[in-house]
Amino acid sequence: MGSLASERTVVGWAARDATGHLSPYTYTVRQTGSEDVVVKVLYCGICHTDIHQAKNHLGASKYPMVPGHEVVGEVVEVGPEVTKHSVGDVVGVGVIVGCCRECRPCKANIEQYCNKRIWSYNDVYTDGRPTQGGFASTMVVDQKFVVKIPAGLAPEQAAPLLCAGVTVYSPLKHFGLTAPGLRGGILGLGGVGHMGVKVAKAMGHHVTVISSSSKKQAEAMDHLGADAYLVSSDADAMAAAADSLDYIIDTVPVHHPLEPYLALLKLDGKHVLLGVIGEPLSFVSPMVMLGRKSITGSFIGSVNEAEEVLKFCVDKGLTSQIEVVKMGYVNEALERLERNDVRYRFVVDVAGSNIEEAAAEAPSS
Amino acid sequence: MGSLASERTVVGWAARDATGHLSPYTYTVRQTGSEDVVVKVLYCGICHTDIHQAKNHLGASKYPMVPGHEVVGEVVEVGPEVTKHSVGDVVGVGVIVGCCRECRPCKANIEQYCNKRIWSYNDVYTDGRPTQGGFASTMVVDQKFVVKIPAGLAPEQAAPLLCAGVTVYSPLKHFGLTAPGLRGGILGLGGVGHMGVKVAKAMGHHVTVISSSSKKQAEAMDHLGADAYLVSSDADAMAAAADSLDYIIDTVPVHHPLEPYLALLKLDGKHVLLGVIGEPLSFVSPMVMLGRKSITGSFIGSVNEAEEVLKFCVDKGLTSQIEVVKMGYVNEALERLERNDVRYRFVVDVAGSNIEEAAAEAPSS
Repeated sequence: MGSLASERTVVGWAARDATGHLSPYTYTVRQTGSEDVVVKVLYCGICHTDIHQAKNHLGASKYPMVPGHEVVGEVVEVGPEVTKHSVGDVVGVGVIVGCCRECRPCKANIEQYCNKRIWSYNDVYTDGRPTQGGFASTMVVDQKFVVKIPAGLAPEQAAPLLCAGVTVYSPLKHFGLTAPGLRGGILGLGGVGHMGVKVAKAMGHHVTVISSSSKKQAEAMDHLGADAYLVSSDADAMAAAADSLDYIIDTVPVHHPLEPYLALLKLDGKHVLLGVIGEPLSFVSPMVMLGRKSITGSFIGSVNEAEEVLKFCVDKGLTSQIEVVKMGYVNEALERLERNDVRYRFVVDVAGSNIEEAAAEAPSS
Repeated sequence: MGSLASERTVVGWAARDATGHLSPYTYTVRQTGSEDVVVKVLYCGICHTDIHQAKNHLGASKYPMVPGHEVVGEVVEVGPEVTKHSVGDVVGVGVIVGCCRECRPCKANIEQYCNKRIWSYNDVYTDGRPTQGGFASTMVVDQKFVVKIPAGLAPEQAAPLLCAGVTVYSPLKHFGLTAPGLRGGILGLGGVGHMGVKVAKAMGHHVTVISSSSKKQAEAMDHLGADAYLVSSDADAMAAAADSLDYIIDTVPVHHPLEPYLALLKLDGKHVLLGVIGEPLSFVSPMVMLGRKSITGSFIGSVNEAEEVLKFCVDKGLTSQIEVVKMGYVNEALERLERNDVRYRFVVDVAGSNIEEAAAEAPSS
């Protein structure tokens, strides 16, 4: 147990407006509460949602905003009632840092579906303070939302598992899609999609990557281990693959037709949407009725599932494919991610970027 | 066992063109095959699909066409290898009279999802002959597709169970929605919807009827036993009912928005489409993702499920609400059904309509 510290000053990289440009920002975080864990951030992945939030694409951004919700760090202090973690532990923080603990989802330990969930950043904590994310030297987080990173997993490797990894793992588990031999489709090959291929392959599935072009074919097959690759504009190949898949994990975050993919599903197949898309998606009812197919979706995963997917990756020797960058490169990284120019996830080496020293030397924010 | 008869002459009421007007029509049916059951039709329900087929709404109608797929009759002859039925049995025939018996759905006894299923009418049988439905004196049907009507169920009562009844029973069973205490919504109160209320109530569910107007409220609550009634245009009532239903059985056969109803579902709730709708339905992805909801559908039910729902109705003392009419009234009945003017299903008293004698007296067809 560490001692209770007073309010502490933290340096993060914040967006100040809808340009989404990040720059050093000094702010304070709360005193260490009785169930709080103080995490020195080591690495933080960059998720597409960080762009949406930083640039106010969803219309609810508040500035200054320190993004980052794929956080791996080291415990440097714990509150007196913390039992789950100790100083020196390597731990992770994901998308959620609070929930009501009373509702049906909370009681079922799927707190990501709690209507009062508190986001890691761009939200307001129970003390009225804004939450700030992982592109920062330090986070203070309730122990319930801090997961242990198991031995055998490098911290930079673990970062993308806390959002992208659990986002694909959770629906496969929930919808009963974990048995070896299933045939799955992964639609879209970005940060979430590449983890989808790896997790599904590790479960023993036959995995088809479905993409709008053939440009990622070699990579999907050779590097990620996919079994097949379908170009959605190739009508003959799509027709040949009709009625062949048990599920499709749909990671595409922009509007797209559903019917070409529904046709690929077998009887009782499931189309699982993971991308938040504001424009309506459409389909005709016989496409689902005549094969008893489901269009469904899933939203990240729970803290318990995050711990499960980390263990699953250790057990299966599965790693994410990442490009590690320094904090000073974050704006370029965000731009490259926006044009899908990354294989497959940027992870910022926060601790190796000396952001506190850099901020001290920079002009006042 | 009866003897093998030669080809037999049958009188039915057929549509001759896309006006959908039915009139007497004399045709022959096949010789009794080794696994065939010859059924003297007693009653036949009128389903909305009969209108679609008779009027060529789906673009694939062939004339002359004898509609009718909610058939109850008496076995008058059986082929030598028929083991399931005997002369004198009261039996039912539903939507399907053939399947491949080789595919995954056939092997799982959900032959309604076989891609080679043969419809009761407006289809071609294995011998190359057109199939003709239940508005006729006689049908010859493979024993596999003939269900026994259990004692305790009046034949006219049983007719609507063979399509409307099994259509609501099958998804409730398949999707794990049979436990007492569940909260269900029935969207649309026609032939299928009224069976939905009755079946769901008999399962011990709390049932909310959702309709576009209040005009069926008293009937839904007082006569069918629904627990609640929601008018979809009443924004306050819809908001108050948000996040309250485990499932919605959607029987509406025309285009309608999905989002107001998705909002009524709880976490993991299921929206089950039963209406064939050609115009695309739409929704935004967060509506399903943030509650892990499913938009799915189901298509009639299997022969096994038809037998189950018949037994379920006997066990629960559950009857359909029908208006019995004579064959000569069928065109008026079709018109009234088209404008939704029936509580809730027409059943034609085929055997009581003397259609063979009437045809003999009528001008040649």
